[in-house]
Amino acid sequence: MKKFNVAVAGATGMVGRKMLEVLHERNFPVNNIYAFASYRSAGNKIKYGDKELTVEELTERSFDRKIDIALFSAGASTSLKFAPIAARKGTIVIDNSSAWRMDKLAPLVVPEVNPEDVKWNKGIIANPNCSTIQAVVALKPLNDKYKIKRIVYSTYQSVSGAGMGGYMDLENGYKGEPPKKFVHPIAGNCLPHIDSFLPDGYTKEEMKMVNETRKILHDESLRITATTVRVPVFYSHSESINVEFEKDFDIDELRDLLSNSPGVVVQDDPEKNEYPMPIYAAGKDEVFVGRIRRDNSVNSGINIWVVADNIRKGAATNAVQIAEILIKNK
Amino acid sequence: MKKFNVAVAGATGMVGRKMLEVLHERNFPVNNIYAFASYRSAGNKIKYGDKELTVEELTERSFDRKIDIALFSAGASTSLKFAPIAARKGTIVIDNSSAWRMDKLAPLVVPEVNPEDVKWNKGIIANPNCSTIQAVVALKPLNDKYKIKRIVYSTYQSVSGAGMGGYMDLENGYKGEPPKKFVHPIAGNCLPHIDSFLPDGYTKEEMKMVNETRKILHDESLRITATTVRVPVFYSHSESINVEFEKDFDIDELRDLLSNSPGVVVQDDPEKNEYPMPIYAAGKDEVFVGRIRRDNSVNSGINIWVVADNIRKGAATNAVQIAEILIKNK
Repeated sequence: MKKFNVAVAGATGMVGRKMLEVLHERNFPVNNIYAFASYRSAGNKIKYGDKELTVEELTERSFDRKIDIALFSAGASTSLKFAPIAARKGTIVIDNSSAWRMDKLAPLVVPEVNPEDVKWNKGIIANPNCSTIQAVVALKPLNDKYKIKRIVYSTYQSVSGAGMGGYMDLENGYKGEPPKKFVHPIAGNCLPHIDSFLPDGYTKEEMKMVNETRKILHDESLRITATTVRVPVFYSHSESINVEFEKDFDIDELRDLLSNSPGVVVQDDPEKNEYPMPIYAAGKDEVFVGRIRRDNSVNSGINIWVVADNIRKGAATNAVQIAEILIKNK
Repeated sequence: MKKFNVAVAGATGMVGRKMLEVLHERNFPVNNIYAFASYRSAGNKIKYGDKELTVEELTERSFDRKIDIALFSAGASTSLKFAPIAARKGTIVIDNSSAWRMDKLAPLVVPEVNPEDVKWNKGIIANPNCSTIQAVVALKPLNDKYKIKRIVYSTYQSVSGAGMGGYMDLENGYKGEPPKKFVHPIAGNCLPHIDSFLPDGYTKEEMKMVNETRKILHDESLRITATTVRVPVFYSHSESINVEFEKDFDIDELRDLLSNSPGVVVQDDPEKNEYPMPIYAAGKDEVFVGRIRRDNSVNSGINIWVVADNIRKGAATNAVQIAEILIKNK
């Protein structure tokens, strides 16, 4: 079997570390593996299975070596600068930042939803926003069968979505320490504010959900609105999703359809108090869907509750799955 | 000024104690005041301002004394049994349980919204569900002006809504102790499950929001759906509310309308990171509304974020405000 030279850029961050972990646990066929980060982390050691990698500073020369695939999770500005350099040297970049997601030359890919889009990449493939990934994994089979008319998203997002700083704000917040990453305390609180605000009052996070859902489902006219909220949960994002369909459905058939969809686990047995929850989704790669019920306020609508690990399926695992598509048949 | 004999039934619970506190802080004109609870709490002392009340067991004889107004927060089965007994003896019961809310002979009242309904009471006035109260305070002025077509509720409800047991589950959960009140851990988790499940997959809490909103706004045809979720917050419920109107609106005019509505405080300045949050709404009586923005996925829609203290405005304060209407002009 062919092996590949792989790099992780932003390797010391929460998602970067998880990318290395997921590459190893999924037995990605690695020849050489490199860990890149900012100069501040250069020289540090980082785990890759039983091995330790020495972190190298990410520079314009980093891609002079032959690197087949680079997983980036180093922030939008780093990605804007270094992803094109890597692509020009023949590396295919799978980028977890928001930098390239809406670029017309960059496919935005969730392997269970639009794997075919990987093909038309020009060297950069974008990994969607965490809250979008888990939503479209659940919505894709429903859109194929019943055609989505409108989506109302309300999210319950964990602090790890804001990286180690977000995580520490919650952990330290319960000890009474003021927040450093968030602008308000998150312990015992809900912050209806993720990423920065736009002039129309929406946050960038909310518009990511609107625009990325449209791009991934290949429907620019899809009617979508979103409210994104940070909650005092360490791992996994939860989403209350209200969907209106063009076509009518049978609710049992719809549930079966979800049960048989790739990457989806239906957890929906109220009598047994079984429904998706963030603490149980944490550490898993599937998207958990439950509370599936007809919305009687419209002709053909449902409410569902969707939970997934934002660091795994919402970031690292999705990126590695894209890499797996790239090397298929090579 | 006339003074009244007042009782609080369920006086040792979280809401009952707050009822006594709110009666005192709002200078309710009290002549005699009684604290009733189950036999287990009888003989205990409980605070009412600087005084201490001795808790009496709630029995069929409790209302043999002349009691003008009784605030009940003792659960639905206790209320079903004792509220009619009290009403027959001439006491007006303001009941915080779900027992009488949908009874055609019991008004369901939020003083800022439908104070006139107090008049037709037959001895029992129902206090709405906490999550409904804060929603209708915000929605009433909008319904009057723009006529609501459809509401999609997603809630972020605090553990105190489940009483002291819920509160302790969160506090102890962070020390690694298993939950006693909730069926799953709440620390670091979200539970899409409040009150019990109905055969159609909705919870009773969700249907309370649907049915009580209709009753309070006097519109049985109002199209409403809800997803109610417990989050690891001690006090205050938050709600992501998506509303579609019959009539179009100007978003600045709508914001002004909310700013001038009774019981509403608009907190909506994203540039200053100002929006409603549970830790700051706790201890207050107002309903805080922010993140007010047009929903571009429908013709005339908005998203708003509504936060209020569930024990105060969502329960105790609302009940005392109803009592204040009762004694006006007496």
